[in-house]
Amino acid sequence: MEAIEEIAKEECLELLQTKAKVGRVAFIEDGRPMVLPVNYRADPESVVFCTADGSKLSYLKDGAPAAFEIDAARSANHSGWSVVVQGTAQEVTDEDELYELRHGPLKSWATDASQHWIRISIDRISGRKIPES
Amino acid sequence: MEAIEEIAKEECLELLQTKAKVGRVAFIEDGRPMVLPVNYRADPESVVFCTADGSKLSYLKDGAPAAFEIDAARSANHSGWSVVVQGTAQEVTDEDELYELRHGPLKSWATDASQHWIRISIDRISGRKIPES
Repeated sequence: MEAIEEIAKEECLELLQTKAKVGRVAFIEDGRPMVLPVNYRADPESVVFCTADGSKLSYLKDGAPAAFEIDAARSANHSGWSVVVQGTAQEVTDEDELYELRHGPLKSWATDASQHWIRISIDRISGRKIPES
Repeated sequence: MEAIEEIAKEECLELLQTKAKVGRVAFIEDGRPMVLPVNYRADPESVVFCTADGSKLSYLKDGAPAAFEIDAARSANHSGWSVVVQGTAQEVTDEDELYELRHGPLKSWATDASQHWIRISIDRISGRKIPES
């Protein structure tokens, strides 16, 4: 067992923007929690990802509450870190923004870029790390 | 973009029991979704992990609905897989079971084994993979 350290907000935002390509979106589906992995990109205000028609991720719109998590673990020395975002989800509908997203660097491994784009606001962000022992 | 394939239930259970040491628990905290990583172990019926006093994971008891996710990704070829469990959470209170858990192979990297143990039932399990292109 190692001591957990909090990660400062600035470092959390840096990790979110640079250190992961896959994160997990948590949301509420018919009153129950659900969590699914997505390819994503982040800026200091939000996390964005795309999703197909009919996906469970279609729950994520109209200000639905959402959480988003990334982590990294090193089994060899039991170290690791995680960052968690809490915010609300909106589908991107602005045509200029959609154009940029569809032609931007985020290529989902699973979803055609022409599908829906969802943005989660970063209302709260926190992180924890377990240093190398 | 690659085609997504469903993973059969038997293979999902196999992946859950063998392929990951860290998973992410999603739960509802004051009406909002939350997701946190944990070290875990699984059997064919449940996922179990330990948590400290006062952790947010203390929401996970008394049949609270929960989801649990593991995944693996290979950035080089955009392949990967994920498994998601949905069920309900109960704190383990049986003394014999607690003894076994506290002396068993699951060593949390962050939490002393003497703390609370939470079990999430595997009511539903599903998985998806994106094969190598």
